[in-house]
Amino acid sequence: MTQPLFERLTVIGLGLIGSSLARRAMQDGSIAREVVAYDASPTVRTRVAELGIVHRVADTGQEAVQDADCVVLCVPVGAMAPSAAAIIPYMRTGAILTDVGSTKQSVIREIQPFLRPDLHFVPAHPIAGTEYSGPDAGFSTLFEGRWTLITPIEGGDPEPVAKVAALWQLCGAMTREMDAAHHDRALAIVSHLPHLLAFTICGTADDLEGESRNEVLQFAASGFRDFTRIAASDPTMWRDVFLNNREALLEMLARFTEDAQAMARAIRWGDEEFIVDRIERGRRIRRSLIEIKQA
Amino acid sequence: MTQPLFERLTVIGLGLIGSSLARRAMQDGSIAREVVAYDASPTVRTRVAELGIVHRVADTGQEAVQDADCVVLCVPVGAMAPSAAAIIPYMRTGAILTDVGSTKQSVIREIQPFLRPDLHFVPAHPIAGTEYSGPDAGFSTLFEGRWTLITPIEGGDPEPVAKVAALWQLCGAMTREMDAAHHDRALAIVSHLPHLLAFTICGTADDLEGESRNEVLQFAASGFRDFTRIAASDPTMWRDVFLNNREALLEMLARFTEDAQAMARAIRWGDEEFIVDRIERGRRIRRSLIEIKQA
Ligand SMILES: NC(=O)c1ccc[n+]([C@@H]2O[C@H](COP(=O)([O-])OP(=O)(O)OC[C@H]3O[C@@H](n4cnc5c(N)ncnc54)[C@H](OP(=O)(O)O)[C@@H]3O)[C@@H](O)[C@H]2O)c1
Ligand SMILES: NC(=O)c1ccc[n+]([C@@H]2O[C@H](COP(=O)([O-])OP(=O)(O)OC[C@H]3O[C@@H](n4cnc5c(N)ncnc54)[C@H](OP(=O)(O)O)[C@@H]3O)[C@@H](O)[C@H]2O)c1
Repeated sequence: MTQPLFERLTVIGLGLIGSSLARRAMQDGSIAREVVAYDASPTVRTRVAELGIVHRVADTGQEAVQDADCVVLCVPVGAMAPSAAAIIPYMRTGAILTDVGSTKQSVIREIQPFLRPDLHFVPAHPIAGTEYSGPDAGFSTLFEGRWTLITPIEGGDPEPVAKVAALWQLCGAMTREMDAAHHDRALAIVSHLPHLLAFTICGTADDLEGESRNEVLQFAASGFRDFTRIAASDPTMWRDVFLNNREALLEMLARFTEDAQAMARAIRWGDEEFIVDRIERGRRIRRSLIEIKQA
Repeated sequence: MTQPLFERLTVIGLGLIGSSLARRAMQDGSIAREVVAYDASPTVRTRVAELGIVHRVADTGQEAVQDADCVVLCVPVGAMAPSAAAIIPYMRTGAILTDVGSTKQSVIREIQPFLRPDLHFVPAHPIAGTEYSGPDAGFSTLFEGRWTLITPIEGGDPEPVAKVAALWQLCGAMTREMDAAHHDRALAIVSHLPHLLAFTICGTADDLEGESRNEVLQFAASGFRDFTRIAASDPTMWRDVFLNNREALLEMLARFTEDAQAMARAIRWGDEEFIVDRIERGRRIRRSLIEIKQA
């Protein structure tokens, strides 16, 4: 057997993403010789041990990262800094610290103060997910055919960046390097704004009085339903994402609101051409997605 | 064999809905002895004949409705009045005229001037659909397990209403009577607003400059994609729906916009509790949908 990419891979936070990564690494010996896990929640630690999706579950972060050559933070974005702070002092010289957070500028900004010069920090974001969370929700093929974006920090070495790219490629992902600010703007429109709109329309519907609220549920097949799938996602994760990408997200929401107002005006004044043009764009985008097989 | 519900059922407009109804009626002899079709488009008429999904395709509306005991208008909402006006003079005394339009007050208001006292008009709306359109998109099981809402006009006979309900029940639908104004408000939130938001976010994304626009497509899996499916729907149909339910739709959009602004404020000021509360509602609604098997 050829040398695996890592000797010891440590996953911190065994939710949907962390447990999927662990499962993949256990399945594919070329990723790491040993997979170690730590989660702040004792319930999750017990469950991960039961599931047998890692070689070893550690009782503390300190114990988990000892002698690991790669540590992957898979906790909510708001928990990245404290969980990094708790383990960095115990990491081995030359080891790689990476993360999977859905926002990148905030994670870099908050982890940087705790970094050591003898460690390599490589921020990354696998763009894959479902509306479920927790260690039971993960599966080893989650990242297949999806993108993982890597947002290297300034002045970092290229070799650890290449190793993190290799890690995700071994998980079946395509990888791409990108500036963190650019990442946050792109994700604001493709992911964070759609989630915000989905949560909001569920709230608007939930506020309707008795009878109307029931009808929303009963007649959901006519469009509403498509919004509720993504609105079923984890509150802690999404609260953190919204708060940690607020500038880009609020800017995209402002653009969207302007566009919705323009549509409202066109409806009010019967501007058929404008309305049809807007609808045609939706169709075009859908067609492009189907062409590039992302639909 | 027992008596079918109708002797001759005429379907006007053989798109997704009309062709699905025709297919069902052809499959299930208890709906009608003969199924006749007419579409304004010669291409559609030729295609429907090729598909063999009706007994007979008529060359004119006049010919199609002759001797029919039930005529179903399945044209876009904006075409309901002209197509009703064109056929009503040739309908048989005592026949039922019904429609499938997604808005009900406007259809009733616009058809009423052309009605004859010896005909029965029963407005209805099968709440089922896909993002596809045209005669090839239809299928006989489209209405199964879905609701059809019937919005009887004031002073109408109960018997034709019962017959239209029976028609949709034979198509596998559950039926419910409802006031037209109530229908239009309910559909504004469950269907028309979600479509408006989906079209709008596609437009907002389409307006991004070069590189960012490509990224929207590539990273669509992270949420955006769920919005594009419903945004692929037919422009004529949706233009008509928006224009014909403008009051209720604009009111729901105003509520939604207020709610989105409240979310924006909470994100700007870091009001975690508010954000989590909103997200929790999304989850609750999703869970309710799963419970009542409409997810
Ligand atoms: N879900 C997606 O679609 C998706 C996609 C790409 C990236 N991401 C990113 O991936 C990360 C994890 O998301 P997820 O969906 O996997 O979340 P998840 O299923 O909720 O799992 C997160 C896990 O981390 C644990 N945790 C929280 N704080 C911790 C700490 N300080 N130290 C150690 N463990 C801690 C949580 O324990 P408790 O249950 O006790 O809180 C939970 O078990 C987030 O940064 C998210 O932004 C998510
Ligand atoms: N799609 C849905 O999700 C859905 C759900 C419930 C109810 N509805 C309602 O059902 C109706 C039909 O929708 P659809 O999705 O089936 O539309 P569609 O697939 O676009 O089909 C409409 C058909 O009607 C024809 N038509 C247009 N004007 C006509 C006229 N004056 N006389 C005869 N035929 C005419 C069209 O021909 P051309 O192609 O030449 O225009 C087309 O073949 C609409 O009122 C819609 O609101 C739709």
